[in-house]
Amino acid sequence: MPHRTGFHPGTGRCVVDQDALKRACGIEAAQDVKDGMVVGLGTGSTVQHTIMEIGRRIKDEGIRIQGIPTSIASETLARQMGIPLTDLDVHPVVDLTIDGADEFDAHHNLIKGGGGALTREKIVAKASKRMVVVADASKEVELLGSTFPLPIEVIGLGKTPILRAVEALGAEARLRMRGNELFLTDNGHPIIDAKWDHIEAPLELERTLDLMPGVVECGLFLGLCDEVVVAREHGVERL
Amino acid sequence: MPHRTGFHPGTGRCVVDQDALKRACGIEAAQDVKDGMVVGLGTGSTVQHTIMEIGRRIKDEGIRIQGIPTSIASETLARQMGIPLTDLDVHPVVDLTIDGADEFDAHHNLIKGGGGALTREKIVAKASKRMVVVADASKEVELLGSTFPLPIEVIGLGKTPILRAVEALGAEARLRMRGNELFLTDNGHPIIDAKWDHIEAPLELERTLDLMPGVVECGLFLGLCDEVVVAREHGVERL
Repeated sequence: MPHRTGFHPGTGRCVVDQDALKRACGIEAAQDVKDGMVVGLGTGSTVQHTIMEIGRRIKDEGIRIQGIPTSIASETLARQMGIPLTDLDVHPVVDLTIDGADEFDAHHNLIKGGGGALTREKIVAKASKRMVVVADASKEVELLGSTFPLPIEVIGLGKTPILRAVEALGAEARLRMRGNELFLTDNGHPIIDAKWDHIEAPLELERTLDLMPGVVECGLFLGLCDEVVVAREHGVERL
Repeated sequence: MPHRTGFHPGTGRCVVDQDALKRACGIEAAQDVKDGMVVGLGTGSTVQHTIMEIGRRIKDEGIRIQGIPTSIASETLARQMGIPLTDLDVHPVVDLTIDGADEFDAHHNLIKGGGGALTREKIVAKASKRMVVVADASKEVELLGSTFPLPIEVIGLGKTPILRAVEALGAEARLRMRGNELFLTDNGHPIIDAKWDHIEAPLELERTLDLMPGVVECGLFLGLCDEVVVAREHGVERL
């Protein structure tokens, strides 16, 4: 479905408006939401358009859904949009989650956690029957970890031994900072960002990291995403 | 090393004083502490005697050590005993950790976490060159999980889907309560106590649990403990 976002009169070439593409992409994904669903609401600049479109559909089309936000930011936006909210204690099974990603590959495996909400996002994704990711084409990679460091949420008192253990796996690893302070997640834990040239064996790496005492969660989302809705220059495409 | 703790004059039979045995056991383990060491200080009714004996040795023998407590309780006791404290950021490698256990088997594999400090204890144990466990004989089991439920620390918002997933593994699982309130660890997270008849394949179970999004740590300590100092009726024994 091509989506021309502008036409430069002088050159005759298509001018791409990145935000319009993201909006089209976010709105496209929101069409998967059906009346009566429990919907995981992700975080990011593309998925915010999904949340706004769901809010519009509730208002204009009268669909009744309940949302489970994956971050404080998405919770705030969902409330503004008038989306009724619930949680995993009331609804441990989520019908559909729509979320962003920092990287995705051809197998729909992801790296997430640039925003720091990886643990909450992974819990909601795992609880979901279906996960759709919205992303722009720049997030598409052949091998995970090529462009984005892997975020790893860790218990604070173990951060230094874990950092060393991650370095021993060949990564350039650093604690995420916010100015001069240690960045802390919504759970109150620091994040280690670990950069390899690329990640050779994601499944094995996830196991290795998860088994390290003090690692809460890493940003590898393997086998969780069912479909990617990608904003390309020529339009929105479903993969 | 037999340790007779009492002799009943009427029957001629040895009367066992459980606390005296625990004390003897805790004191025995404290002899492994050498001058200059960084020592992980565990938690529990036996290891508290270790901490007190280390304090005595600092005072009477002039040994210089630094302690890393595995809980707020052991931190408080260590301060009272005048043990200088440090942390894993300053000393990411610990020379020796002495800790208790809720169960131990013939392979020195453990279940820990009855006190709720499993994550901190596991981080310190993993960072240690050597781990010695002090326990009374009632903690010895043929198969882990036979007598004690497995504690699993989880991120609060994922507790219900994780509880269901643990039940799907055949366990009777419940959220740990403190009176009418949810029990929360020092990290602010709830604990699921999961009871099987026994744990068939501990290594596989640990992997399965660690890979569940929202599981922080489980109480299986596999391949971490080097020696068990056990308080038996006839005395203290090193395994």
